[in-house]
Amino acid sequence: MNNFSYYNPTRYVFGQGEYKKIGTLLQGTVSKLLLHYGGGSIKRSGLYDEVTASLRGAGIDYVELGGVKPNPSLDKVREGIELCRREGVDAVLAVGGGSVIDSAKAIAMGTTHHGDVWKLFTREEQLTTTPLPVATILTIPAAGSENSPNTVVSNEASNRKLGFGHEQLRPKLSIVSPELCLTLPKNQMANGACDMLCHIFERYFTNTPGTELTDALCEATMRTIMQQASILCREPQNVEAWAQLALSGTIAHNNILGLGREQSWTCHALEHELSAVYDVAHGAGLAVIVPAYFETVWQANPGIFAQWATNVMGVSASRDTERVVREGIERLRAWYKELGLPQTMQELGIPADADFAAMARGACSVRDGGVLPGVKILNQAEAEEVYLRCAH
Amino acid sequence: MNNFSYYNPTRYVFGQGEYKKIGTLLQGTVSKLLLHYGGGSIKRSGLYDEVTASLRGAGIDYVELGGVKPNPSLDKVREGIELCRREGVDAVLAVGGGSVIDSAKAIAMGTTHHGDVWKLFTREEQLTTTPLPVATILTIPAAGSENSPNTVVSNEASNRKLGFGHEQLRPKLSIVSPELCLTLPKNQMANGACDMLCHIFERYFTNTPGTELTDALCEATMRTIMQQASILCREPQNVEAWAQLALSGTIAHNNILGLGREQSWTCHALEHELSAVYDVAHGAGLAVIVPAYFETVWQANPGIFAQWATNVMGVSASRDTERVVREGIERLRAWYKELGLPQTMQELGIPADADFAAMARGACSVRDGGVLPGVKILNQAEAEEVYLRCAH
Repeated sequence: MNNFSYYNPTRYVFGQGEYKKIGTLLQGTVSKLLLHYGGGSIKRSGLYDEVTASLRGAGIDYVELGGVKPNPSLDKVREGIELCRREGVDAVLAVGGGSVIDSAKAIAMGTTHHGDVWKLFTREEQLTTTPLPVATILTIPAAGSENSPNTVVSNEASNRKLGFGHEQLRPKLSIVSPELCLTLPKNQMANGACDMLCHIFERYFTNTPGTELTDALCEATMRTIMQQASILCREPQNVEAWAQLALSGTIAHNNILGLGREQSWTCHALEHELSAVYDVAHGAGLAVIVPAYFETVWQANPGIFAQWATNVMGVSASRDTERVVREGIERLRAWYKELGLPQTMQELGIPADADFAAMARGACSVRDGGVLPGVKILNQAEAEEVYLRCAH
Repeated sequence: MNNFSYYNPTRYVFGQGEYKKIGTLLQGTVSKLLLHYGGGSIKRSGLYDEVTASLRGAGIDYVELGGVKPNPSLDKVREGIELCRREGVDAVLAVGGGSVIDSAKAIAMGTTHHGDVWKLFTREEQLTTTPLPVATILTIPAAGSENSPNTVVSNEASNRKLGFGHEQLRPKLSIVSPELCLTLPKNQMANGACDMLCHIFERYFTNTPGTELTDALCEATMRTIMQQASILCREPQNVEAWAQLALSGTIAHNNILGLGREQSWTCHALEHELSAVYDVAHGAGLAVIVPAYFETVWQANPGIFAQWATNVMGVSASRDTERVVREGIERLRAWYKELGLPQTMQELGIPADADFAAMARGACSVRDGGVLPGVKILNQAEAEEVYLRCAH
């Protein structure tokens, strides 16, 4: 196990009806906030009315900015920053899924940052000011952004989708009420479960020795995500299964499962290139990338892949490691299929003549050294191989 | 799953050599602290010299109070409070195991509390002031106090051992360096592993429905504790096993594993009566109480006990639930024995004619309603039955 430091001061409030306490929970610490949300769903569902009533009841003033789209845009972030500065807002409340929360985090740091917010993502500038505090009411369990220190934003002008992480970006308050998920369509549940599972893959598939505890915690959470998402395929109104899935999504990405482990984030880097150019759903993109990635790298550390296949995918242990690993990958593909997720780039609507070389170059450029880390370090040619493996 | 709120703002720093950073990590937030510790072991090992050098290097002034004993005493707590007030101390640094940390927490809240610190434990008074911040350097993985909001203190005058919990009591900083454990004797490792495991039992054995994720996380951590403690029986110098055990001890009690679950704490209440009167080691007392408790209550919820026996103790699943559960309990006894832990009150040095009725009365008096919660609610007569079951 590697040395580590962990600091997670989010107040995490979970359960049916808890979102109605938002005003009370913020009272005394916030006087005027930016209410940030996505499309019209929170208005149609009545959530918007309940949240604003709770804020008014607590004497908290607000201005609002809706219209955040999946793969949240830098333009919307800039709009939010301008609004927060003009209105003298002292906190940002995100009501929505990972895209809304990520956008809120970017606005929160951009408002106090003296330079250009995009240059924080490109590492041309450093975050030295304290961001506005962020609170969240989660409506789509997936990204784990409600308890993570990370944000991902897309710059449409340059077709780049980049992530940024900073301790100060963990929300101060996050409320997760599973009944808010009952109106989600199956594909959003599936994309979310796929994203959560991949957040664990990025931590689990590592060459770090001495990780018995977090191995076992990762495996426990992976099994739970897969089981509960399968239940939700059959019973989309099962609020208890939504509760399990939503809590799993938070645990998958608040980094309890990654303590003391090297981490990869290669599947995310490969997927971000897809969704930056083609605007595919992040979870759907991951379902295509992950099996191809596993097939490309498993031989670099057959032990961890066989352990995953037996402890998570239920494959019987055997001396024939290759058979065990391949069976594990096939079962993962079958689970993606059960959830209705795509299996190839073609199904994602990405043409066979897409510029995979440019995507591989983009993915590799995110990290120092121009290679992708993980159980096997991938250069640009190897990254392109992953794309080609799942092209059709 | 029940609704819950979770807030854990401890900065948790883990790894070999990390304790040497104590001065740097506190710099700028603390000007003068109380250095609190136990017997002379930290002086013999050189840890005291390294810690004080680090504090001096960071320009942090300190006064010190050593001599904390296992089952930390109210008298020592009162001495610490007086010292902190007289010296104008602004933080407490505990260097030691759970007893030292618990004592430090009691001092930290007693220093700012306007009434009598013991009346916080007896619930005659309420904590309304902010305690001094507590920092810890852990030397004995066991109690989980380094990341918990709880403290337990013994009042020798009244033979009472009581716990107190408050959100403000989570340490602001905790450092865990596994190499500090290499000098611990086997019985301290065994007592610690037994305590950690029981912290999970108190959360796991519940009647709360819809706990799939935390069930699986509990099981993962229980298996890891048992495996790593067994390794340490054979290889006491295995620093990687110490790292796994120490991290498991924190996870076992920072309440990630208890999210949204009813909790029992009945074995702890029963054990505290033993160690309040007979001053036995807490972990050793638990090893005696737990199997007797399981045998007394398992029929109230055979499902969770059978799940534990198969998923943690490796018993083959079978329709004969009673056989599965009893085999699980026998395997737990065998593990306690492997660790050199006692199996009966007699082995603990508690006489057969001890006043078990008074102990049962004491244990039941801790909770509202005069009964002990858990999968089966125990009245005083049933609590006494647990004691009698393990008398010899």
